[in-house]
Amino acid sequence: MGEPRRGLSRRALLTSGSVGAAGVVVGAAGASAAAHEPPAADPGLRTVPFRGTHQAGVVTPPQDHGVLVAYDLLDGVDADALRRLFAIWTDDVERLTAGRAGLADTEPELALRPSGLTVTLAVGPGAVEAAGVDVPSWLGPLPDFTVDRLEGRWSEGDLLLQICSDDELVVSHALRLLTKEARTFTTVRWVQRGFRGPLGRDRTPRNLMGQVDGTANPRPADHDALVWRSSTTTPEGPAWLDGGTTMVVRRIRMELDTWDEIDRTARERTIGRRLDDGRPLTGGRLEDDPDLDAVDANGLEVIDPFAHVRRARTDDRRQRILRRPYNYDDPPPPGELTDAGLVFVSFQADLEAQFVPLQRRLAELDLLNQWTTPIGSAVFAVLPGARRGEQLGQSLLT
Amino acid sequence: MGEPRRGLSRRALLTSGSVGAAGVVVGAAGASAAAHEPPAADPGLRTVPFRGTHQAGVVTPPQDHGVLVAYDLLDGVDADALRRLFAIWTDDVERLTAGRAGLADTEPELALRPSGLTVTLAVGPGAVEAAGVDVPSWLGPLPDFTVDRLEGRWSEGDLLLQICSDDELVVSHALRLLTKEARTFTTVRWVQRGFRGPLGRDRTPRNLMGQVDGTANPRPADHDALVWRSSTTTPEGPAWLDGGTTMVVRRIRMELDTWDEIDRTARERTIGRRLDDGRPLTGGRLEDDPDLDAVDANGLEVIDPFAHVRRARTDDRRQRILRRPYNYDDPPPPGELTDAGLVFVSFQADLEAQFVPLQRRLAELDLLNQWTTPIGSAVFAVLPGARRGEQLGQSLLT
Ligand code: HEM
Ligand code: HEM
Repeated sequence: MGEPRRGLSRRALLTSGSVGAAGVVVGAAGASAAAHEPPAADPGLRTVPFRGTHQAGVVTPPQDHGVLVAYDLLDGVDADALRRLFAIWTDDVERLTAGRAGLADTEPELALRPSGLTVTLAVGPGAVEAAGVDVPSWLGPLPDFTVDRLEGRWSEGDLLLQICSDDELVVSHALRLLTKEARTFTTVRWVQRGFRGPLGRDRTPRNLMGQVDGTANPRPADHDALVWRSSTTTPEGPAWLDGGTTMVVRRIRMELDTWDEIDRTARERTIGRRLDDGRPLTGGRLEDDPDLDAVDANGLEVIDPFAHVRRARTDDRRQRILRRPYNYDDPPPPGELTDAGLVFVSFQADLEAQFVPLQRRLAELDLLNQWTTPIGSAVFAVLPGARRGEQLGQSLLT
Repeated sequence: MGEPRRGLSRRALLTSGSVGAAGVVVGAAGASAAAHEPPAADPGLRTVPFRGTHQAGVVTPPQDHGVLVAYDLLDGVDADALRRLFAIWTDDVERLTAGRAGLADTEPELALRPSGLTVTLAVGPGAVEAAGVDVPSWLGPLPDFTVDRLEGRWSEGDLLLQICSDDELVVSHALRLLTKEARTFTTVRWVQRGFRGPLGRDRTPRNLMGQVDGTANPRPADHDALVWRSSTTTPEGPAWLDGGTTMVVRRIRMELDTWDEIDRTARERTIGRRLDDGRPLTGGRLEDDPDLDAVDANGLEVIDPFAHVRRARTDDRRQRILRRPYNYDDPPPPGELTDAGLVFVSFQADLEAQFVPLQRRLAELDLLNQWTTPIGSAVFAVLPGARRGEQLGQSLLT
């Protein structure tokens, strides 16, 4: 579930229907039928299934473009109102991710080439409260970390949508449609857009520091143990979040001006992996783990004691997270050269057991801290998926 | 010249050199040799030639991502200083567009997959003055148009770089490198980023109003007559701009909230072309001209007298421009839903003969004006291309 399918479910329709020169069918019927993969598939027609035990956009390989939008609920929005909003969103998301226009879509043509679109709905403490449900203790601001320089304009939020597609126009269209539908319930709190190289599907992508970023992520076989909440991973509940996960969004500015002043050796030491191809400094292939015990001719550790990859791992194999970040690069404020960094996104079944100790360890000591500054932070609960006949948020709003 | 070449000039190097797992060669030699097209070309390695009579990025089919950055010159920057800056930029742009790291590149790996990168250098009145050369009368703010609501933060500038690539990471990397190199000469005045659908190469792309946008653009055969300055198109000179062109950059906000309130018929009437496939309301194929004389059963003109496409053309076939816009979609200001529109870019040999009368006609009367607001405006002179052994700006700085 939530894995991309490169099927061309709408191809038959598009080639047989009464279509215009641009091959456009407005409001054509569903994407759920066919799933065979014709040769030379048109990447614009790629769809990622919406229905399932889990929402898409979590373990889905990251698309080229993403936007995260956090909403605040208007006064008076209660469980009933949320139910109405989630019903509308469920319908819209099901349509849009299948390459169909939303019900009240004013630009239906922009929906027809979803390019792997996923929309992921998550709730912050405000929405759980509005639902009349106990807010889990971990669902709220993270503990203070010494490295943080958080700004309110990039932090917190009652509701979150993560919208990702290989086509930025599709991201914009879905963002506007879904925000418009939510107008009588919410105001926009913040919007964070990001990108990855369009080659992200074939090779491990790079971030704006030039590093190969995203290598040591849990494999699909580990997703059940590390990402999804269940009676195994989080037996303490709440039950409404089984099939969901926890989500951390941190806006981390890269201090590229000072980063540019250090040489390649110092940069590689900072991470513990090579800049040119991302392999561990201790050798081996890209996907190999760094050998944390290796020493050089002088008996010194090859991977620096404070290197990012050393500090980011422990023998406790449970303290792993699924990272799914996007790069951002905004116009710089007057007098500055660059305003860039990561929209860091991570998913983990258990926020307190997996993310918090890891982030605490990194905040305490990590060479990388000198060149990165967290300026925004938010925690959300990613709701379970909507199976056939269900609505998003159904388990929360019963 | 300036036309994209899908040759894989660096492929031999990349497969034969001593490369790492990610296939990376830092500082490998040039892209100028081979030009054959192997099957299944890696789009990341696509290069557009830098050297030529004209700069690339003008008649080059638009890449998926673009950024326009305008600089102001620091006090005391004179012809000599400009010559130094343009020498540095010439070298960097030649390297980056060939998929090689810049000389002082601190993130060389981000240069290796140029994905069709072009960098286009243009000068505003400030740079021409600093060069000690007479500023052409047209090189400065456009005449006032009644529709304008211009903001200084999106207007004017002494120098401009237009950086385009199919990979947004490549755009960011080139932007930072080139801005850093210019640090002792300039400050950043404004930065405008934009995007088009990644499918822009195969089909006419759409804008955020949902329209097929970019259809009736001059064909390659018309570029010499309409785009490039020469003793034929602009015999009055100045000679330093022969081989160059004029460039208009206007930030045009789309009033999507009110646009969304009108129905499809009214929208199609506004433009004069169909929303679903972009064909003229008078029928025919996408690439056909609208039939401005056609009347319906009631004797009314099929293309509204004030439709955008009618107002945008005259019998004077000289009044045509090459449009090369990008979409923008920024986080909305508090309380608003969307902040989106076009980074409208046009190239024309003769600004006063081609662009100004057209823009004046549209400003006077154009149904579209009700839903669009120009909020930024700037005019630049795109310098001629740098042929082998030449530097950008050489003709200006002799
Ligand atoms: C701008 C900020 C950051 C940058 C530039 C960055 C960069 C990197 C790079 C280059 C790697 C090595 C390649 C890879 O495995 O992906 C890495 C690994 C990793 N990072 Fe970060 N990182 C950042 C922030 C964070 C944060 C905030 C966390 C968690 C709180 C984190 C957790 C990890 C983990 C768990 C690994 C894998 C370590 C391993 O098992 O080998 N990183 N990061
Ligand atoms: C947000 C602002 C604008 C939007 C949304 C817009 C949209 C469109 C659309 C949809 C078309 C028809 C398809 C095509 O031929 O590309 C078109 C055509 C055209 N537009 Fe615009 N336009 C805008 C601003 C401008 C401006 C500022 C100018 C010039 C000053 C301009 C000049 C033209 C021209 C010359 C044509 C081709 C007309 C023809 O020969 O058929 N447009 N525009």
